[in-house]
Amino acid sequence: MKKLLWAFLLLAGAVLHAQQVTSPDKNVVLTFKLSANGEPTYELAYKKKPVIKSSTLGIEVKNGASFINGFKITDTKQQTVDTNWEPVMGEQKTIRNNYTELLVTLSQPANNNRYIRLRFRLFNDGLGFRYEFPKQDGLSYFIVKEEHTQFNLAGDHKIFWIPGDYDTNEYAYTTSKISEIPALQKKATIEINAQRPIENPSVQTPSMMKSADGLYINIHEAALINYPAMSLNVDAGFKFSSHLTPDAVGNNGYMQTDAQTPWRTIVVSDKATDILASKLILNLNEPTKYKDVSWIKPVKYIGVWWEYFVAGKSTWAYGKENNVKLTDDFTKLTPNGKHGATTAHVMEYIDFAAKNGFDAVLVEGWNVGWEDWIGNWKEEVFDFVTPYPDFDVKKLQAYAASKGVKIIMHHETSGSATNYERRLDRAFEFMNDNGYNAVKTGYVGSIIPRGEHHDGQWMVNHYIHVAERAADYKIMVNSHEAVRPTGLNRTYPNWIAQESARGTEFEAMGGLAPEHTTILPFTRLMGGPMDYTPGIFQTDLTYYKTGGNQRVNTTLAKQLAYYVTMYSPLQMAADLPENYNRFPDAFQFIKDVAVDWDNTYVLEAEPGDYVTIARKAKGKNEWFTGGITDENSRTATVAFDYLPKGKKYVATIYADAKDANWKEKPQNYVITKVVVTSKSVLKQYIAPGGGFAISVKEGTTEELKGLKSL
Amino acid sequence: MKKLLWAFLLLAGAVLHAQQVTSPDKNVVLTFKLSANGEPTYELAYKKKPVIKSSTLGIEVKNGASFINGFKITDTKQQTVDTNWEPVMGEQKTIRNNYTELLVTLSQPANNNRYIRLRFRLFNDGLGFRYEFPKQDGLSYFIVKEEHTQFNLAGDHKIFWIPGDYDTNEYAYTTSKISEIPALQKKATIEINAQRPIENPSVQTPSMMKSADGLYINIHEAALINYPAMSLNVDAGFKFSSHLTPDAVGNNGYMQTDAQTPWRTIVVSDKATDILASKLILNLNEPTKYKDVSWIKPVKYIGVWWEYFVAGKSTWAYGKENNVKLTDDFTKLTPNGKHGATTAHVMEYIDFAAKNGFDAVLVEGWNVGWEDWIGNWKEEVFDFVTPYPDFDVKKLQAYAASKGVKIIMHHETSGSATNYERRLDRAFEFMNDNGYNAVKTGYVGSIIPRGEHHDGQWMVNHYIHVAERAADYKIMVNSHEAVRPTGLNRTYPNWIAQESARGTEFEAMGGLAPEHTTILPFTRLMGGPMDYTPGIFQTDLTYYKTGGNQRVNTTLAKQLAYYVTMYSPLQMAADLPENYNRFPDAFQFIKDVAVDWDNTYVLEAEPGDYVTIARKAKGKNEWFTGGITDENSRTATVAFDYLPKGKKYVATIYADAKDANWKEKPQNYVITKVVVTSKSVLKQYIAPGGGFAISVKEGTTEELKGLKSL
Repeated sequence: MKKLLWAFLLLAGAVLHAQQVTSPDKNVVLTFKLSANGEPTYELAYKKKPVIKSSTLGIEVKNGASFINGFKITDTKQQTVDTNWEPVMGEQKTIRNNYTELLVTLSQPANNNRYIRLRFRLFNDGLGFRYEFPKQDGLSYFIVKEEHTQFNLAGDHKIFWIPGDYDTNEYAYTTSKISEIPALQKKATIEINAQRPIENPSVQTPSMMKSADGLYINIHEAALINYPAMSLNVDAGFKFSSHLTPDAVGNNGYMQTDAQTPWRTIVVSDKATDILASKLILNLNEPTKYKDVSWIKPVKYIGVWWEYFVAGKSTWAYGKENNVKLTDDFTKLTPNGKHGATTAHVMEYIDFAAKNGFDAVLVEGWNVGWEDWIGNWKEEVFDFVTPYPDFDVKKLQAYAASKGVKIIMHHETSGSATNYERRLDRAFEFMNDNGYNAVKTGYVGSIIPRGEHHDGQWMVNHYIHVAERAADYKIMVNSHEAVRPTGLNRTYPNWIAQESARGTEFEAMGGLAPEHTTILPFTRLMGGPMDYTPGIFQTDLTYYKTGGNQRVNTTLAKQLAYYVTMYSPLQMAADLPENYNRFPDAFQFIKDVAVDWDNTYVLEAEPGDYVTIARKAKGKNEWFTGGITDENSRTATVAFDYLPKGKKYVATIYADAKDANWKEKPQNYVITKVVVTSKSVLKQYIAPGGGFAISVKEGTTEELKGLKSL
Repeated sequence: MKKLLWAFLLLAGAVLHAQQVTSPDKNVVLTFKLSANGEPTYELAYKKKPVIKSSTLGIEVKNGASFINGFKITDTKQQTVDTNWEPVMGEQKTIRNNYTELLVTLSQPANNNRYIRLRFRLFNDGLGFRYEFPKQDGLSYFIVKEEHTQFNLAGDHKIFWIPGDYDTNEYAYTTSKISEIPALQKKATIEINAQRPIENPSVQTPSMMKSADGLYINIHEAALINYPAMSLNVDAGFKFSSHLTPDAVGNNGYMQTDAQTPWRTIVVSDKATDILASKLILNLNEPTKYKDVSWIKPVKYIGVWWEYFVAGKSTWAYGKENNVKLTDDFTKLTPNGKHGATTAHVMEYIDFAAKNGFDAVLVEGWNVGWEDWIGNWKEEVFDFVTPYPDFDVKKLQAYAASKGVKIIMHHETSGSATNYERRLDRAFEFMNDNGYNAVKTGYVGSIIPRGEHHDGQWMVNHYIHVAERAADYKIMVNSHEAVRPTGLNRTYPNWIAQESARGTEFEAMGGLAPEHTTILPFTRLMGGPMDYTPGIFQTDLTYYKTGGNQRVNTTLAKQLAYYVTMYSPLQMAADLPENYNRFPDAFQFIKDVAVDWDNTYVLEAEPGDYVTIARKAKGKNEWFTGGITDENSRTATVAFDYLPKGKKYVATIYADAKDANWKEKPQNYVITKVVVTSKSVLKQYIAPGGGFAISVKEGTTEELKGLKSL
């Protein structure tokens, strides 16, 4: 009897105070328990190695009792889910969603048994968990003062990080030990337009780490909806804790039950390639509610854009004036003679797009207001419907249509989100009326509503509002300077890409480190597709004789690789048409490469060092591979074992020449054609700052005959 | 030669350092000069009595040099203007605009001769002046930290005031000496939903004063556009100074040249009636730019409204729940059984409106979201397009149209202006689609964008944005809880009325002092028409047996007088139809009274004591008079000398019975018909808290024969 009682108590103890859950493959183990004072805690291990040591969970409330301690467990539920789903566009046609879930109900006896839930989902590649606040008597509205989610790491990991900031994610990455972050924070906080750095040591997510015992750990969030973005405080002892983006009056989040936080995600593996292959974040997002998604399509595009940065021959603005109002008559401005978005010039781009099979042409600087759009915290900065006098909307609509090309609308808001929202329906109506089906949005500048931040709850809701409104008009959205993505492209598939990191434009504004793009897939791209705008062939920008001495810090071949290594269903060929005309053989890869995929194979990867990825084009027997390195040369190993067995294919390899590197002779490349099979393995040299790209297609018998095997 | 030089210096001194300008009738005299350190100053006198003693003018800039001192006068210009114009709707058909203008250009040698202008307009009844910032090299954008406009009064005047507040103007008036304000401020700051009182002693404008030497002085502002509303600091020595409403980050105003402040207005006379007759504020507003104003029409209306306050039988909300989201299915709510805006009930109101000649029926509580709309700082609070399940939009549209009645839309925002703006086009489209041509807007609650205030620059622009957008859809706007009006109904004539003060609803929420409506015409109504919602016949609210013990603190006859004393082209008959059915003879006045006028005659007035006004109906030989008193009885003297000479008219007099007063027997009234001519003078008794109303019409010969002469 005593024995039985003891067993019962053990069991009761387990139910009330500790729960252990494992991933379907048993590699990931979560332990949940309450501390002595009723504080929820969790631990995470991967293959018995500690990932997160005991860490507390809690939400501090501004206008009432907090959800921090005094909890008791009133219910726990477990279930295992294993399903497949198909994204509208993506890295693979079918995504498996396989996890073990633990749902814990916690009540606070001291607060009328008010209860919350913690939902944990253990995947084979990590953990997602969130706080849930069910609708109940006595809990309808509350204000989040701060979230206190800890991530107590097991050691002084190597980390690839950018500093915490409420307004920008366009920082360069620093690689250091966690313990070195406080000392490096100031240096890492380089000057960016409209920034609001967090004062204490902190990093942004996705935060990529590597432990001394060989674990790759990525912390981020999924499904950031109606809540501020989370940064991570870097506390002493390798402890991270959540740091939410406050609003204009210092509150973090306005909650109404039913409510939940975004998922806090920890992707973990002992293989770096698993991190890149992870679909954990997408799986934690909700399926789309859009009934019709037939109008959402991948886009390969060019644009009147890079010339604004480098060529010195054109400008967004039409007038010489530096003080304009939307109520002005812009036909009365003094033309500066260098306006880029003229009817004639856009027609040249349309011709080039049509000739080379691009879907669309982005045109920036088409609408009035660019003369003084930046830095003035000006609310009525653009109206999104009035073209400059030299941009003929109707003529271009007809011309583009006749060529089978779309024009991509551009809506720079200058951070004035209120102005954008009040004009949004009219802007989208204008797009519908004039044949536009996609828009690039921009948020350069301090936010209006003044006091709000790019990454706060209000703006988080704004971006989603824009995506949803756009869907009403069957418009696709590519947002720049928006909050870092969290997999919402699953739920809002017309939000097809974002910038939300330091992209190619910075190559013209100080340059990017050669390793930058070997880090981005492990950080920024964990959240979703990036409009990185690759494809710069003229990497030495002094070529333009515009006074600058910048260069794009890659070889030409590396730019080709980006079309595969940087996933996005929206891909730009960002360079000037004239430069593509100079290198037609290399340009062929950009013309050929797919932007939507049946499958993806992460062949090699190490954050900060290299990435090699192969992908199968959606619905086609074509495969494309991209490989990149950092500032060091290397030899990539490219297996073709994903190819159907027993069949020969033609591989075209675009590689750095032996004498190329990112600083010298970056345009020296070698293109070779060989026959490959599923048994082929390529050892491919990559130059310092270089890369390579491969297209694999079915060849005619004749073609195959004329080529050597790999 | 010495003499000549001296004369020249005197002249130069006059040009550089002092300017005196007089009103067309020479009664109002402005003296402008620079102080020794180049600070602009002005003085104002009326019939040689000091109104404003030497007071400084200046604008403190946040992000650069201020416009406070170091000025020199570089140019002055004078002109006299005398024109007439016709308002779309108004107290008189033709308004004379007659002033002498002094335009002073001031430059700052120490700031690259940057210059501003001060524009003064001297009318026979006062002064308007403003700061102007012309477009110039080196002055495009600046942020106003504070405006330093002084109004140094000449003595310890009697003042009718409400305390300074960034969010509400719904305070009860306090009458005191200026010197008593600091001690009374706390008591005067009664609790109001969403208030943000100014901490230092301050009052709101329009601020009405009476000097010991018999001057009536009113300080307000005109044409408040793209600038925050001004309150007045009450500094020692009867000195007032401007206090602007800050934004979320503590800035006052974002300016882009060309820019100007609103006009600061000082209406002055030795006759109180002149203050009420003043058109100075309207004259300082810009003419409308609307090309077509044919759709803007006066409106006499009833509404599903007062029953929410008093009758206890109906509610705005449909469901019993207190936690709803716009995404909820409202057909699944538990009906509370008391929803007011049901199809059947609104049809009853439509029937009553049609039978009694009303133009429209206001319906509040028609749309989903009222279950938890207040006090939660909830952004997505209403969508303005989704009716409750028991409100049939299409059926009511057809029914109202068949009866020749309009339904007035209601858009309560709960202060969530961002939510309203993002839905505005859709809301107005919905109105167009469903036959609505007027909307009552509401801003009950703390503003979103959070940190902004009802009276700040952002919201000032919001209200105007709503009016302009509404005009695109030919919709008239009646805003409640908006910033106090400043004559913008001239520029935006579809913004036909506002609440912006303590109106009739407060009779059901604690009551209004009997003198309240003798003050409002001198304060709130100086800015523009008020939707005061008069016409309460059942003044004793205990009648409804709903547990309250409130009463409307007037007699029934006084409620009739309001239709004349409280000018608005939008007038409600606010009581329940059943109460009008109980008093059909008194109700006849409400049915008869005009709401738009050819002319207005302010017969008697003393702020805080009494007001008697007569008006001629627009385009008709009908005249209506209203007279009210405070808590004291009085005998009004009503001359009919505005009537065409030599003709007899029938006057119907609706007066308090001898035994009536606001506390007891308020419903005792006497209706008499008499013959009047332009020579008639009526001595009319008014009960304590009472009033009277008179309609004057042409009578048939028979009618005239049967009546006694006055």
